[in-house]
Amino acid sequence: MTEDALVIFTPSGKRGRFPLGTPVLTAARQLGVDLDSVCGGRGICSKCQITPSYGDFPKHGVTVADGALTEWNAVEERYKSKRGMIDGRRLGCQARVMGDVVIDVPPESQVHKQVIRKSATQRDIVMDPATRLLYVEVAEPDMHEPTGDFERLAIALRDQWGVDDVTADLTLMRRLQPVLRKGEWKATVALHKGNHDATPRILDLWPGFHEGGLYGLAIDLGSTTIAAHLCDLKDGAVLASSGLMNPQIRFGEDLMSRVSYAMMNPGGDVEMTRAVREAINALAASIAAEAGIETTAIYEVVFVCNPVMHHLLLGIDPVELGQAPFALATSGSLSLDARELDLTNLNRAARGYVLPCIAGHVGADAAAVALSEEPGKSKDMVLIVDVGTNAEILLGNETRVLACSSPTGPAFEGAQISSGQRAAPGAIERVEIDPVTKEPRFRVIGSDLWSDDPGFAEATKQTGITGICGSGIIEAVAELRMAGLLDAGGLIGSPEQTGTWRCTPEGRTHSYILHDGSLEGGPRIMVTQGDIRAIQLAKSALYAGARLLMDEMGVDKVDRVTLAGAFGAHISPKHAMVLGMIPDVPLDHVTSAGNAAGTGARIALCNVAARNQIEATVHHIHKVETAIEPKFQEHFVNANAIPHATDPFPELNAIVTLPDVSFNAGGAGSEGRRRRRG
Amino acid sequence: MTEDALVIFTPSGKRGRFPLGTPVLTAARQLGVDLDSVCGGRGICSKCQITPSYGDFPKHGVTVADGALTEWNAVEERYKSKRGMIDGRRLGCQARVMGDVVIDVPPESQVHKQVIRKSATQRDIVMDPATRLLYVEVAEPDMHEPTGDFERLAIALRDQWGVDDVTADLTLMRRLQPVLRKGEWKATVALHKGNHDATPRILDLWPGFHEGGLYGLAIDLGSTTIAAHLCDLKDGAVLASSGLMNPQIRFGEDLMSRVSYAMMNPGGDVEMTRAVREAINALAASIAAEAGIETTAIYEVVFVCNPVMHHLLLGIDPVELGQAPFALATSGSLSLDARELDLTNLNRAARGYVLPCIAGHVGADAAAVALSEEPGKSKDMVLIVDVGTNAEILLGNETRVLACSSPTGPAFEGAQISSGQRAAPGAIERVEIDPVTKEPRFRVIGSDLWSDDPGFAEATKQTGITGICGSGIIEAVAELRMAGLLDAGGLIGSPEQTGTWRCTPEGRTHSYILHDGSLEGGPRIMVTQGDIRAIQLAKSALYAGARLLMDEMGVDKVDRVTLAGAFGAHISPKHAMVLGMIPDVPLDHVTSAGNAAGTGARIALCNVAARNQIEATVHHIHKVETAIEPKFQEHFVNANAIPHATDPFPELNAIVTLPDVSFNAGGAGSEGRRRRRG
Repeated sequence: MTEDALVIFTPSGKRGRFPLGTPVLTAARQLGVDLDSVCGGRGICSKCQITPSYGDFPKHGVTVADGALTEWNAVEERYKSKRGMIDGRRLGCQARVMGDVVIDVPPESQVHKQVIRKSATQRDIVMDPATRLLYVEVAEPDMHEPTGDFERLAIALRDQWGVDDVTADLTLMRRLQPVLRKGEWKATVALHKGNHDATPRILDLWPGFHEGGLYGLAIDLGSTTIAAHLCDLKDGAVLASSGLMNPQIRFGEDLMSRVSYAMMNPGGDVEMTRAVREAINALAASIAAEAGIETTAIYEVVFVCNPVMHHLLLGIDPVELGQAPFALATSGSLSLDARELDLTNLNRAARGYVLPCIAGHVGADAAAVALSEEPGKSKDMVLIVDVGTNAEILLGNETRVLACSSPTGPAFEGAQISSGQRAAPGAIERVEIDPVTKEPRFRVIGSDLWSDDPGFAEATKQTGITGICGSGIIEAVAELRMAGLLDAGGLIGSPEQTGTWRCTPEGRTHSYILHDGSLEGGPRIMVTQGDIRAIQLAKSALYAGARLLMDEMGVDKVDRVTLAGAFGAHISPKHAMVLGMIPDVPLDHVTSAGNAAGTGARIALCNVAARNQIEATVHHIHKVETAIEPKFQEHFVNANAIPHATDPFPELNAIVTLPDVSFNAGGAGSEGRRRRRG
Repeated sequence: MTEDALVIFTPSGKRGRFPLGTPVLTAARQLGVDLDSVCGGRGICSKCQITPSYGDFPKHGVTVADGALTEWNAVEERYKSKRGMIDGRRLGCQARVMGDVVIDVPPESQVHKQVIRKSATQRDIVMDPATRLLYVEVAEPDMHEPTGDFERLAIALRDQWGVDDVTADLTLMRRLQPVLRKGEWKATVALHKGNHDATPRILDLWPGFHEGGLYGLAIDLGSTTIAAHLCDLKDGAVLASSGLMNPQIRFGEDLMSRVSYAMMNPGGDVEMTRAVREAINALAASIAAEAGIETTAIYEVVFVCNPVMHHLLLGIDPVELGQAPFALATSGSLSLDARELDLTNLNRAARGYVLPCIAGHVGADAAAVALSEEPGKSKDMVLIVDVGTNAEILLGNETRVLACSSPTGPAFEGAQISSGQRAAPGAIERVEIDPVTKEPRFRVIGSDLWSDDPGFAEATKQTGITGICGSGIIEAVAELRMAGLLDAGGLIGSPEQTGTWRCTPEGRTHSYILHDGSLEGGPRIMVTQGDIRAIQLAKSALYAGARLLMDEMGVDKVDRVTLAGAFGAHISPKHAMVLGMIPDVPLDHVTSAGNAAGTGARIALCNVAARNQIEATVHHIHKVETAIEPKFQEHFVNANAIPHATDPFPELNAIVTLPDVSFNAGGAGSEGRRRRRG
């Protein structure tokens, strides 16, 4: 046996020679192997578990003898008897190298482990959170070498963890002395390393070795809904996902009406800021309760939002966003104390991070979609639409990425729809209309049965059938078009024209009765001519935005489409294409990214390097301003027809034949005119 | 004439060759000549005025022709006609080099000018304030290259002033857009550059070019008094000096009684923190009113204080400072937002800086004295005593500096003295007692007349004669000793022993009647036996601390003594030495440094580099702990006698002969015992 030995780590493949007696953890650190440790090698935290492999390893050119590591020691015995340990495992800080050895680092011992989410959108995120726990042993005060307790804690963090120049606020300073004494000069700190060159900051500390949870909130602050994921900062697990309506809706349904509210009402922006901050506090409380944790265990919050929500969250009057040149007060990312945003339902020292905006109309939510979907890494030309009250649209591939936003309005979210409601139990979410009988069947959230399945009435008894949500209205309109009850111009036919009583007159237009619950005391759920118009406006805006990017890119088709947004997962690609929401592509090239903005927020929450990445990326995304581009208006008008007045949809036509009906050549939807012609 | 020309700047002597046509300001910047400019060379601010010199300059080896600079231009004409300019002056940003030239930079055009204070302690401070005004021209927003207004402001600061990575808080972000538009994309920012590697921060901004004042507070937060200087951050001028009693006195007169209060009363530290912060707010308001400025124009506040005041200011329970090992929660300097200290009577964005502490009993006030008096740069052995409720004592020279603090109590400040009061009009501040007649004469604050001068009664009619202040009691006790009315043990003699009715019995001891105002309805002002005891305790503590440092230094005499402290300027060296407050030195080697701690605070306020300097210096000051040093007690007991029981005072004896009286060999001051012996 030589004086030193070869140590090979898997799965990284990193290898090096070390003097006999070197702890495995030390070898791992020197090689830069990703092996976790909270206690810094003191045999307390058990995070550094490793699995030695014995025998011949021709692949590595090494043979591992039985005595390649030191025998089990008392620390390991105690740990195993007290808390259990998988057979074959060792503590990396206790086991020392005594001969050539192959060491496997299991996933749960890696700091930067890839974690698979169980809930929320499935996504592997490499864990590299800003805040983590570090155990330290602090020198006791010495009257003859006087220094402050904080300065000795800082030295301990430097010497034991390589963390330089830590800071802390006065609240932590106040708690420091009792905690250090209670822990007999041992303590665990929650350290926020920040991004860029921010100085690391101690957010919290506990006496002795502490293993409590650190949690973070990833918040997608939309015009209509505020959605949050509560994540464990240790492994990225989503403990709970929750959402609520944005209370700013009472000041205006869409972005521009809120900007107008701020312009017309002095102090209106302050009112809206207060409302949204209160809602976020309420959301933090409810999501923490749902997950069974204390709000004080939430140490970080990451925000993605459109520019108007961004400014109102930060307490900045959004008035400049309502007029050209749509100047943002600040476009860069922001790292701040959560309490600067009056977010009091978090740990008092919690940090906030707001993703950068791309432009005055393309916000941090679009940046988050870019972070999640990475169009700049795509080989083929991908169109990503994040459907909300405002649609964020990205188009690009490895060579170039374009972005715009388009004011779709809240129709896709079920607002401004006569029977519209948010996606909640009782809401109709799927619709089919028989092209022969013109009879509908549907499904409601909360039951897997269709309305013509046996037991449906029983299954929906508790929720009732209360309305129609965003994906339901899209399907309903597309089905009406496919069943020949709606013409390309967007007019619902009369009972005589369509041959069904369900197309019933409502004033001078017609509505389609989707479900009449009045006999059971429920609502009558209809698709009105006004609903069709709202959907037409929304889908025209969406399509026109996509077309504008395609013009700028110089393409007239895209390779694939990704539907993102809170209900992106629920939109049927076929129905979206019948409606002409998105450009014509093969149906199997339309995929859903779920809540991509929310996923982007989670990535930024769990991985500090991703923050730097998106901050760099946004500078390379070219932004197209829909509001001042004359072509936008032309695209918008042409997209008003269902699916489109001029663009061919060959891929759609190959699978769906749309009935060639026309209920009013004039297209004005006027009973009077129709009668005159009839 | 050649293609370039030689430019020589005086008084710096810096020189270089520049292409013809180079503005003088540009040449100065490239050579690192200290030439001010707020507007960055746009001819707006006039800070860059220079004086060209013409003719032969053999010393510089150059001859300056008449056309060495370009002719006066329109910008200069306009400036001169509007605001006036000294003959011979030019604007450095407008005048361009056309030939060899000698350029004088007058003191008022230097950024780092040395400024002589008119009030407060006279002191030259090189100006290098943390916060200064910078004028910038910001690019307008461009829809096609979207960035935030803040990001374009940051670019302007980088390109026009070389300031990288500025930050700002949300309150400033909120104001940014209206200000930039009002100033048509020109603005002036108040930039705080911070010390160390802190990122520069915009504290305030104004549309266009702005010349308003930036002010700072230097606060000496003492146990008994809080003293503040309001300084102009442009030139260091002291606009007003003010003080008030520390309201914490109601929780305990000295440091240890306040620590006890915190220990005995849960929440007591919070109460004391609130009290002192409220007092500082009140002081800020009154000093701003006195100077005729708005409190919002105060952008910085610097604190010096002893460790207990330090912790209570920061909101940290000082309990650990009451017991060995006297551990500070934090000893380093602190840079923070003033509003973290609830200081609301300043600009909302005002920054705070707290000097570092040296040890658990030797605080930031001692550090400030070290910064002001620089014992580490002294060739001879200097003893610096900062007299207050706690005395900070420094001893050293170039080779080594020692420090300790000694609990003198508040007697030197007129507290715990029967007729004691703070130094205010009406207080007796000077005392003489005729050694033959034993009659006193005195002066009161507010009048230059002695009490036996004609017109004294008239002159003091308005203030009255209300009590005796710290310097007055010191003189009174020393005069009693010199007049033979007080013996070395500290006993006041009886009327019989002293031959004067003014030594009047008070219970079992005697008091000296300094002034009887009872006929005019004023108080009877006496020096009681209790007053003598209080002064003895205080001066013994002070002397014992000094001796302890001399022991540690291995010297039995010092070369000179500097008396510092709020009333250091008013203590007569002779009386201090008769009392035995300070070690024996030639009288003309005793000087006053005035409020050296306050001066140190002003230096740190006006010069950022000084902060770095003192932060480095405190690590080299060796601290001696009086509380646990057994020799301290011995020194204390021996110092109880007036001037001293054992130490010879040859320098004092050479100029003063102290009567060899003894009023009670037992020293207990008991009438009963005296009677038994008599």
